[in-house]
Amino acid sequence: MSDVEYIKSFLTLYQDFPKKGVVFCDIFPLFRNPLAFEALVTHIVHHLVSDVIPNSPDKKIDVIVALDSRGFLLGPVVALRLGAAFVPVRKRGKLPGECERAAFEKEYGTDEFEMQAGAIVPGQTVVIVDDIIATGGSAAAAGDLVTKQGGKLLKNIFIAEVTSLKGKDKLNTPTYSIVQVDE
Amino acid sequence: MSDVEYIKSFLTLYQDFPKKGVVFCDIFPLFRNPLAFEALVTHIVHHLVSDVIPNSPDKKIDVIVALDSRGFLLGPVVALRLGAAFVPVRKRGKLPGECERAAFEKEYGTDEFEMQAGAIVPGQTVVIVDDIIATGGSAAAAGDLVTKQGGKLLKNIFIAEVTSLKGKDKLNTPTYSIVQVDE
Repeated sequence: MSDVEYIKSFLTLYQDFPKKGVVFCDIFPLFRNPLAFEALVTHIVHHLVSDVIPNSPDKKIDVIVALDSRGFLLGPVVALRLGAAFVPVRKRGKLPGECERAAFEKEYGTDEFEMQAGAIVPGQTVVIVDDIIATGGSAAAAGDLVTKQGGKLLKNIFIAEVTSLKGKDKLNTPTYSIVQVDE
Repeated sequence: MSDVEYIKSFLTLYQDFPKKGVVFCDIFPLFRNPLAFEALVTHIVHHLVSDVIPNSPDKKIDVIVALDSRGFLLGPVVALRLGAAFVPVRKRGKLPGECERAAFEKEYGTDEFEMQAGAIVPGQTVVIVDDIIATGGSAAAAGDLVTKQGGKLLKNIFIAEVTSLKGKDKLNTPTYSIVQVDE
């Protein structure tokens, strides 16, 4: 069994959650098993040091960005392993001080994400980490915030990708997902 | 400068955020500095291995519980360092499958937290981690969820405590906060 299959074996699909017609991918069983969680973090760090960093302009990643709230489970761990800064993206109104703002489409209407102004220094290299890419709307908005601050977005990383929703097509930066699931 | 003073130097207070009369303690500058973040994690792990684990029934911590969403920044990192399981507490309706539920008081009315049923095995030792203790209502509800599942709650750990709000008085389990702030 490869580490990817091992990681995938902890993901649990729930039909009709949070509402009818939706299939929910539960990542929490992965976090309840310390070895599975370590396998996940190691896989991501291995990808970054073997693929992303060697191809980056300055051979380093300055900032890990993650989305509230399940991205927060993973982003800080990865940032700490790399010695990179961790910067959050949150819904409008949750971050104090001056913020950059980007809109993203939801099922009904739009919502807005924010990042604290100055959290990324122009020219810094950035990787975005989140749990699952579905339609890609929120990851695209997070990418907009990185670019607005002058950051160079190197890669979007996800634990799992719902391939049928083609979320990758919404992102104009290379994307890596460890596990592919279909609804 | 002690590590506590070093950690405290990264916390930033904002007056009247998110609304008039409230002082907001911004923890994110700490996460933007990899050395400060490491100092924070090391301080917590040192406290756990030098104080909590030696006084625990089986000389180990089985589960780290953290609250959505800022507790997610810290709980998984600490769990990984200890080789413990990470279990989340989230607002009602966010976790799939069967859940335990506990109410907590908010400024206006009550809200409910959930934990996935079976996430803690009866008899397991548990530590709750969150960013800030204010009135203590949410940490008390998280503690109720641990107890409902049969977990033995050893300690509540916070980066910062707003001392004037006396949140510790609401918790009947030992509590440790690294930094004390006042409004």
